[in-house]
This record gives sequence, C-alpha cells and structure tokens, in this order.
Amino acid sequence: MPEFRKDPITGRWVIVAVDRAMRPSDFVRDHVVPAGGRFCPLCPGHEEKTPPEVLAYRPSGGQPNHGGWSLRVVPNKFPALRVEGDLSRQGEGLYDKMNGVGAHELVIETPDHMLTMGDLTDKQVEDVFWAVRDRIVDLRKDFRLRYIIVFKNHGDGAGATLEHSHSQIVALPVVPKRMTEELDGSKRYYDYRERCIYCDIIRQDIENGARVVLETEHFVALSPYAARFPFEVWILPKKHVSHFENIEIPEVKNLGWIQRAVIRKLDKVLERPAYNLMVHSAPIQEGAMAHYHWHIELMPKLTKVAGFEWGTGFYINPTPPEEAAKFLREVGIV
Amino acid sequence: MPEFRKDPITGRWVIVAVDRAMRPSDFVRDHVVPAGGRFCPLCPGHEEKTPPEVLAYRPSGGQPNHGGWSLRVVPNKFPALRVEGDLSRQGEGLYDKMNGVGAHELVIETPDHMLTMGDLTDKQVEDVFWAVRDRIVDLRKDFRLRYIIVFKNHGDGAGATLEHSHSQIVALPVVPKRMTEELDGSKRYYDYRERCIYCDIIRQDIENGARVVLETEHFVALSPYAARFPFEVWILPKKHVSHFENIEIPEVKNLGWIQRAVIRKLDKVLERPAYNLMVHSAPIQEGAMAHYHWHIELMPKLTKVAGFEWGTGFYINPTPPEEAAKFLREVGIV
Repeated sequence: MPEFRKDPITGRWVIVAVDRAMRPSDFVRDHVVPAGGRFCPLCPGHEEKTPPEVLAYRPSGGQPNHGGWSLRVVPNKFPALRVEGDLSRQGEGLYDKMNGVGAHELVIETPDHMLTMGDLTDKQVEDVFWAVRDRIVDLRKDFRLRYIIVFKNHGDGAGATLEHSHSQIVALPVVPKRMTEELDGSKRYYDYRERCIYCDIIRQDIENGARVVLETEHFVALSPYAARFPFEVWILPKKHVSHFENIEIPEVKNLGWIQRAVIRKLDKVLERPAYNLMVHSAPIQEGAMAHYHWHIELMPKLTKVAGFEWGTGFYINPTPPEEAAKFLREVGIV
Repeated sequence: MPEFRKDPITGRWVIVAVDRAMRPSDFVRDHVVPAGGRFCPLCPGHEEKTPPEVLAYRPSGGQPNHGGWSLRVVPNKFPALRVEGDLSRQGEGLYDKMNGVGAHELVIETPDHMLTMGDLTDKQVEDVFWAVRDRIVDLRKDFRLRYIIVFKNHGDGAGATLEHSHSQIVALPVVPKRMTEELDGSKRYYDYRERCIYCDIIRQDIENGARVVLETEHFVALSPYAARFPFEVWILPKKHVSHFENIEIPEVKNLGWIQRAVIRKLDKVLERPAYNLMVHSAPIQEGAMAHYHWHIELMPKLTKVAGFEWGTGFYINPTPPEEAAKFLREVGIV
C-alpha cells in the first residue's frame, strides 16, 4: 500500500510508493558529461566576455579580469535583477509591486570546462563555499536586500544553460515563499516544543539510520522522510546555526568533503544525473534564530514534474527515501 | 527595469521582465500533435485494456465496457492510491504518516486518438466538465476523501504519458498544500474586507482590460497580474461559487466554449504548446465558502523550471501578462 508522509517542517504531504519502488535503473536519465568544443564565456582567456569580476581566487597572484584564477565570481550578463534604483513599493488597486532591485552573480567553480563538481578536489568545493560566504557577507551590507538564494543547476535537464561548472547567487528584496514556509513551520514547532525541528530530525534520523547517506564530524547527509523526489538528499550541519554565512573553518572543510562525496555517490548510482542544489538559510538581515537551521537540499532530476505536482504542491515519490539512502550509502567512491 | 509583483491570494512574489519581454516566437517549443500508429489502451475496441469504466456517455446506447462511447471514465491501471483500506494515521517519532487511500481516474475525452482538446467540439468539452462533476458528486460520498484534484497534462513536455486526449481526477484524504495556501490567503482577505478576493480581481481586471483574454456571459479568461509563467491563463466564473461541482447548466455550456476558445488561441499563438491545466476548487466535504472561488489555471510549458524556482517558489516570468493577454486576445480563431 502506498503511504502518505508529511514533511514535519512545512506540513506538505507526499505519496511514497513503498510497495512498488523504482530502482536507480528504472529512471530515464540524462548522463551529464561536458561536451566542450563550443565557445564558453566562463573559460579562462574569455574574462572580458563577462562583466568585471566581484571576487576571484588567484593562488599564484595575477591581475583582476585576467587568467590565473582558480575560482571567479561575476555578475550575470543578463540579470533578471538590477543593483541600481530604489524599491518604490506601490499598489495598483488590489495588487502590489516594486522595482526589480537585487543582484544575480555566477560562481565559476573551476577554470577547467570539462570538470563537474563531482570531479573537483575537496579544496575546490570548499572554495566554492568560501566564495559564497564572502559574497553573502558583502551583499548583506545593502539593507534593501533581505534574502540570498544560492543554488546550482547541473545539466540541461535541471535548467542549466551554461555547461561550465558554476553556482548562482541571487539576492532579493523579499523572502521567497518556500523560505517563509520553512521559517514559519520551524517557528511553530519551536514555540510548541522549545527545540529546533531540524536538530530533532538529525537526532532521530541518525539514531534510526535508515535514511542516512553519510555522516562526518560536523555534517549528516540524509534522504528526508517526506522526500518529494527519488534520491533527494539533504546535507545538514549537526551544530545548530541559522545562517550559512556563520559557518566556521573546520565546518567548511567538512562540508567540501561531504558535498563532493554525496555528488560522487549520486553520479555513481544514477550515472551522472542532472540535479538542482540549493542552500536554505535564514534571511540575511535577521539575527541568529533558535528555530531555523541552515542546510543544503539536493534534488536529482529523474522524473518529469507534471500538472498534478505543479498545481498542488503535492508530490508522488516512486522511491522510498530509505531505499535511496541504502543505494547511496552502499555505493563505493574512490 | 524588471518588476516584482505579488500574487494577492498566496502572497507569492514573481519577477516580471517588463522591459525585455519575450514574444511567442522566442520560446523553444514542443508542437504537440498526436502521432498515432502505436497501440493505445484508451482507444475504442480496447475497452478491456483498462479497468472497468466508472462512467461513460453512449449517445446511441450500448453495453458498458464496449464501444459506442463518446466519453469514458476509468480507474487508472497503475494508481498511486487505492480505494480500499483505512487511513490509519500514525506517528513515527516526529513524523506522521497514513495509508495511501484515495482514487485516481482517467477521463477519456474522445474516442478519436488523433484529436486534442482544441480540436473537439464545444459539446465534447462541455461533456468533459459534466463527467468531472458527476465523478466528484459520486466520490465525495466517501467521507475519507477531502479533496479532488482535476487536471490535464497535454503533451510530453507537460508530463503526459498517454497521447490520447484525457483528463485526470485524483481524490485525496488530505488537502494539498497549494490549495491550503489559496484557501488561507483568500480567507485573510475576506476577514479584512468582507469580500471575495477573486470577485475583486475579476472586477478590477475586467475594468482595466489589459490582462483579459476573453469574456463571456458567465466567465472571464485572463492572464493573472503575478503570472508565474508566460501565457499563464486563468478561467474564472463571474458568479461567486466556491465548489466547481455546484456549476449550473448555462455555465457548463459557457465553460465548454471558453475553455476550448482559450486552448485554440494558445494553439495558434504558441503553435500547439504542451500545457498543464487544473481545476482549483474548495474541499469536497466543506460547505459553500464566501471567501473561495473555484477557477481553472492553465499553464503552457514554454520555459524550463530550474533550481531557483524549485527551491524557492519564486518565479521569473519573461513575458508580462499584459503582453501575453494582448497576443491571445488579438489572435483569430475559426
């Protein structure tokens, strides 16, 4: 019998097909392998094809906007948002609008066009997190901005339009709806129990073990109880912290390792799937929150999302998270 | 400058690219045209390939589960939900689950495999709505069921797995999250203003005119102010009614016509796009609601939804609804 499961944070119900579970080999897949061979504006030597960099790591030194970088952050050339101007909130009858003030930046994760995040070194993945932290600390000085979304679309099927490995940073003057739901849901739990719901999930799931993919000193990777998608994985810091940007040095090291390990496991079990990855963190202008707990959500794109899911926010997951976690836990990575 | 717009019902913010709008010809499109030629379990003569029908219209009479039908409703052969069993809600530490009790049915809209909804007659589209009404009235007798989702996935890109024109009915023991958001949002507005927000939207948008696609005696079709997708269209009854199944005879006639007209306009402007369509209606076991207003939401699948949208519930719409409505309003349909 299929099972309805409720996400304890947002209250979202998911149908999990526990009796006729789909295995990794049942999914139609993109195999995401960079093809190269075409002009790439993110490659070294094309630094003038992007807007001037806002951050770069050059281990052996060198001029800004020239070669020699190991990582580079540049504004999006075709941004959906502009840094200039004021918000000028206004009404239009019963409607509300404001100007599209914000920022949209790309983190170019490696100079090598042919590498994906799973192929990078731990140090390179760590550097991506450092760059994200550095950019958040800089962007939050602008008090018009209230939320920063950090995400990665990997592969065509996940909506990536550039092949060269990169993450994206979007700074917004509003808090997005899903974030508000997580903030509200975790607040309700905290008001009732005086505990962080994510801390409770980490405790219960580590004890139970069935949904755990990997565990390190500072992090745990697990497939959540009410996973919306097959092989959905969350990476959570064990220590309660609401804001990603408050991460500490030993944690970043650990995070680089676990993030890369999870991706390599997914690459192995699902044969290099397309995926979306997102950092969920507290609104940047707010102080530390006892009820919210930053984390990463990673969703391989294995199934088509149809009208049912769209219209309802109600998902059918054909692979129980316990089975997904087992496949991922057991696969070896070199 | 791009514009942030807020959906007045759910509070969801959307970025609308008002300054560099994408036109119909800018979108990469599927052209959804039935290919035929392969075995189809929904075609006449294959009635034994589906579970026994729960409803059929046979204008010239005939035996159940044999030919002669103009429309047929059958349970899904591979349902995600089962009618048998009880819910047995239970906890698992901090998690909640229950059995997958519910129903999943297909409305086969025409015996002709090669026709899409835009190709049907007004009467055939009316009959789809009658069948949906009849099934809701039957299914709601089961008090375990609380919400019925009626939707249509048209074309591969919209997640359709069968080519033969059909709609789907899913009956659930819970109210899906998006529905709860609409119910809550419209309730907040009603508590404050003592008016239905949808009635206010209809009034303001008809007066303003810019977002209206079509208007009939009983319905209006418009592209909503905070449309998430290019060419998103809502069809709303002008008279306030919370439950679709309480629709009246002259309204069904009107609805068949406007639904088909909107689809034909989309087919013309966007060259037969894939789309998802969904009926938004009040929970089936509840009485009439002054604050909620049933309607249809139709979303052509023109852009890829990426990590940003997924993770945040925050959308970037490259075509302002005013422009989409203008294209749709002006295109002629025979």
